[in-house]
Amino acid sequence: MSEPVHHARRDRPLLLVNTGDGKGKSTAAFGVVLRSWARGYRVGVYQFLKSGKWKIGEQAAASVLGAAGPAIVWEAMGDGWTWTSRDLDESADLAREGWAEVRRHIEAQTYDLLVLDEFTYPLSFGWVDTAEVVEVLVNRPGFQHVIVTGRDAPAALIDAADLVTEMRPIKHPFERGIKAQRGIEW
Amino acid sequence: MSEPVHHARRDRPLLLVNTGDGKGKSTAAFGVVLRSWARGYRVGVYQFLKSGKWKIGEQAAASVLGAAGPAIVWEAMGDGWTWTSRDLDESADLAREGWAEVRRHIEAQTYDLLVLDEFTYPLSFGWVDTAEVVEVLVNRPGFQHVIVTGRDAPAALIDAADLVTEMRPIKHPFERGIKAQRGIEW
Repeated sequence: MSEPVHHARRDRPLLLVNTGDGKGKSTAAFGVVLRSWARGYRVGVYQFLKSGKWKIGEQAAASVLGAAGPAIVWEAMGDGWTWTSRDLDESADLAREGWAEVRRHIEAQTYDLLVLDEFTYPLSFGWVDTAEVVEVLVNRPGFQHVIVTGRDAPAALIDAADLVTEMRPIKHPFERGIKAQRGIEW
Repeated sequence: MSEPVHHARRDRPLLLVNTGDGKGKSTAAFGVVLRSWARGYRVGVYQFLKSGKWKIGEQAAASVLGAAGPAIVWEAMGDGWTWTSRDLDESADLAREGWAEVRRHIEAQTYDLLVLDEFTYPLSFGWVDTAEVVEVLVNRPGFQHVIVTGRDAPAALIDAADLVTEMRPIKHPFERGIKAQRGIEW
């Protein structure tokens, strides 16, 4: 594990939430990954999605960037997580295992930026306890930015966050019979 | 100029607008750049900002990605644009010169994805004619995705767009006396 980069006094770790029914919740988080990467931050991305196929572009980019600069750790629930040897095939179990690992990394201060992509879903489904998550996030030690994305962010998470953005769909092509477009939607 | 990649019949070029007063308009667009880059698309990013300092992370990432895969052309108004030798120092002139260049690239079908970052501002200010922009974007030839970002997107642009997302601030740390954070905000 590398040493944390130096942080000036003005720096302050933030908890960000991107929620709402519109586009751009995850993509905006990945845009922040680029900024943090360019600053030399240690970045971890944990995708709480059953299917990882939608984020292949970002993962490919993270791999290239990580080889050229600070590593970007990328873990996807859809692949069964890389660290677990147990045979987990239920989404609820996978989500709980994912959160347990994230919690360990928060306590160990592994990352300067942690992206918990689509993490609102296991919270909404009751697979992972929202009160525990909020407690761990609010009391995280040291300097750790955290971004949580997904629809229907729980009120307790919004209350705890520093910055919350709602992505609202004003107009969507699917309403007009246009299919999702490769290179844009995934 | 490389040949356009093959597009299946279901592919359709989209005009996307990210607007609103919240965070994530530009970062979401850069997330789409990653997806398009991973698909082998030719990507051009034109930043209509007087100061380019806020997008250094994305530009650094684009440079690394462009060296490892399809080139990502990155032009910033704040640097005076790279293609113009004329001595332009007024923002209005720079914005008009930027749009003239973008229009040439649209007509030449240079890119598969074109990001016009913060482009709503020269439209709102009346520096660039919105009706002309909408006409050129709506009638763009071939296969060209276009993303326009910035606050207060003109109604005519929203009407012409396929997908419009409003980024709404639900909670913002600046309201609470927390300064913009390096690695997150820029």
